[in-house]
Amino acid sequence: MKYRLLAPGPTPVPDRVLSVMARSIYHHRTPAFEKIFADCRKKLQWLYQTEHEVLTLSCSGTGAFEAVFQNFFSPGDVIINVGGGKFGERWGQMARVFGLEVVSVDAPWGQAADVDKVAHALTQHPEAKAVICVASETSTGARHPYEAIGALVKEKTGCLLVVDGITAVGVWDIKPERDGIDVLVTGSQKALMLPPGLAFLSVSDKAWRLQEKSKMPRYYFDLAKERKAQNTNQTAYTPAVSLMVGLQESLAMMQEEGLAKIFARHARMAKATRVAMKALNLELFPATPADSLTSVCMPAGLKPNAIYAGLRDRANITIAGGQDQLKGKIFRVAHMGYFDELDVFTLLSALEVILLQEGHAFTPGASIAAAMPILAEGFA
Amino acid sequence: MKYRLLAPGPTPVPDRVLSVMARSIYHHRTPAFEKIFADCRKKLQWLYQTEHEVLTLSCSGTGAFEAVFQNFFSPGDVIINVGGGKFGERWGQMARVFGLEVVSVDAPWGQAADVDKVAHALTQHPEAKAVICVASETSTGARHPYEAIGALVKEKTGCLLVVDGITAVGVWDIKPERDGIDVLVTGSQKALMLPPGLAFLSVSDKAWRLQEKSKMPRYYFDLAKERKAQNTNQTAYTPAVSLMVGLQESLAMMQEEGLAKIFARHARMAKATRVAMKALNLELFPATPADSLTSVCMPAGLKPNAIYAGLRDRANITIAGGQDQLKGKIFRVAHMGYFDELDVFTLLSALEVILLQEGHAFTPGASIAAAMPILAEGFA
Repeated sequence: MKYRLLAPGPTPVPDRVLSVMARSIYHHRTPAFEKIFADCRKKLQWLYQTEHEVLTLSCSGTGAFEAVFQNFFSPGDVIINVGGGKFGERWGQMARVFGLEVVSVDAPWGQAADVDKVAHALTQHPEAKAVICVASETSTGARHPYEAIGALVKEKTGCLLVVDGITAVGVWDIKPERDGIDVLVTGSQKALMLPPGLAFLSVSDKAWRLQEKSKMPRYYFDLAKERKAQNTNQTAYTPAVSLMVGLQESLAMMQEEGLAKIFARHARMAKATRVAMKALNLELFPATPADSLTSVCMPAGLKPNAIYAGLRDRANITIAGGQDQLKGKIFRVAHMGYFDELDVFTLLSALEVILLQEGHAFTPGASIAAAMPILAEGFA
Repeated sequence: MKYRLLAPGPTPVPDRVLSVMARSIYHHRTPAFEKIFADCRKKLQWLYQTEHEVLTLSCSGTGAFEAVFQNFFSPGDVIINVGGGKFGERWGQMARVFGLEVVSVDAPWGQAADVDKVAHALTQHPEAKAVICVASETSTGARHPYEAIGALVKEKTGCLLVVDGITAVGVWDIKPERDGIDVLVTGSQKALMLPPGLAFLSVSDKAWRLQEKSKMPRYYFDLAKERKAQNTNQTAYTPAVSLMVGLQESLAMMQEEGLAKIFARHARMAKATRVAMKALNLELFPATPADSLTSVCMPAGLKPNAIYAGLRDRANITIAGGQDQLKGKIFRVAHMGYFDELDVFTLLSALEVILLQEGHAFTPGASIAAAMPILAEGFA
């Protein structure tokens, strides 16, 4: 069977993007490159729906978070880290590595963060320099209430809200200014329909003011240096040029579709998938599911790896299993980026075949029937 | 005219590499990716001519140097930095940013490092934890005597030789064990014939022992974590997958040609270019030119930018000018990576046209005639 990538990142890259990246390489210190990057920078602000500067880094999303900790804080600073999954946990670990005092406000994996607990932590720690929150926790499929946290942080001078939007930007309507987000991070390999290798972050004026005061060693990820360079459509160090050529094309495709339609498509695919899973007698894992991926509990009676391995070995499909404490307990399917309604039908059909073969009880066709009225709205 | 990229990085990427990078994306947590990366890892050791582990990072060469300073040292450690150009200067600056005490042994830009001065610095600073040296200083075109420095450092327990081989690995015969190099850094966009976005470094056992003792905050560039992951053909964080698919292909091309032939080709192109410049009454800038690029003094009477801009505007060719203190004083042409004897003839012909148009005195055809006997050796 044809290979199908249905995991929550890397996600499929459109032919249009693949083919421009296969063009001969540009030298980055040329007007030709600067023209491409100028266009990308404008389009990134459009994608982010922000007036904040949006910087591009050649690294993964984890690298962009390293930039966050190196640029906006000093050793000994207190931050409040809102956990509830593998990525929330990672940012807390990383903050500790860079000498920050981390106040953890953790939800059980799969639950949304508790805003009251964050408010309490802010009261207990008026010295806190930031709240770190994951918008869409890819490891659990949960959406966290970053907007409510933004409302708490907004009025506090000298306290930032840093949001991991790696599987949120380009998926749903997330807006730095409106939502009170000072630093919003994303990566190339999710909704942006690109290979991994680039990361992006928007930076508010409040964050730039903290950047000036920060006393953390930094060089490759020095955002003041990048800001200066990128404002002339250059980068401080040699950038991943071919990915940036792809970026221009993927952002052009996103502009052709329009943000409203992109968000509606993701919402429709997510809603249809959730309804379909229930029709297959499967239980969703997160209490507040994000629109970027659907995370489903492994049904009782099946081997922990049965669905992941079945789709891989018998249908040539890559989805994702659970990580760390969720290993063998959930499976995760994505509807992010270059993904449409018919891809959802394809995924559900393949899943039904595997579930039947594995002996799970459900009515064949039930997921398709359940998803149909929702997905049909996408047929223009 | 057709576009031609003749600058010292990014360098041209072969069609074979561009086309595999245009294939649909692989998910990195799959056996298919692991097979590709396992093959790359073996081929990288072949390219590096080493038994040391060679790690791959998703960043530029500057990012790999950040990994060096974060992993092998602790704040307050003394290092000896051998400067003599923009990149040597950069590594010294970076070391200071990470709290190291830097003893600078600087040569005038364009001169080779003075080995006696390095020996003296090592005697004066027996506590030094490393000597940092650039093999091929891309900003000046000079080759530094890293082998002689390696002989000095080799016997010292607890002192490393770190070599910037960004425009040396894959250009000439550089060998970590033989040359006494503990950490050898390179980037994807030079002799490796790839777009920028990946960096590599080999690490000796002596360096790993220092890594264990190092007390520097690190996360994205944690080499112990990468070593553990890469030994299972994985990476700690999401890697630049498409560039790694390209890497497998470019390394396969290099293996088909063979290292001996690759080195001979670069040596031939460099030698021919040097002889040709003299035949055009042009003076080489560096006293000890590297085989990766040729750096030439701007002839008297021409505008500082005349050759760079002339080639750009009238022949659609990108070369490089001088940087920082060399701005307007030199121009630099590369013969690195996907570059052959006929490309040298092309470059020389274009250069002759521009020099004629600018009024520089020379015998038309002189560079071609001078280069011919040398380049003819490459006609099999």
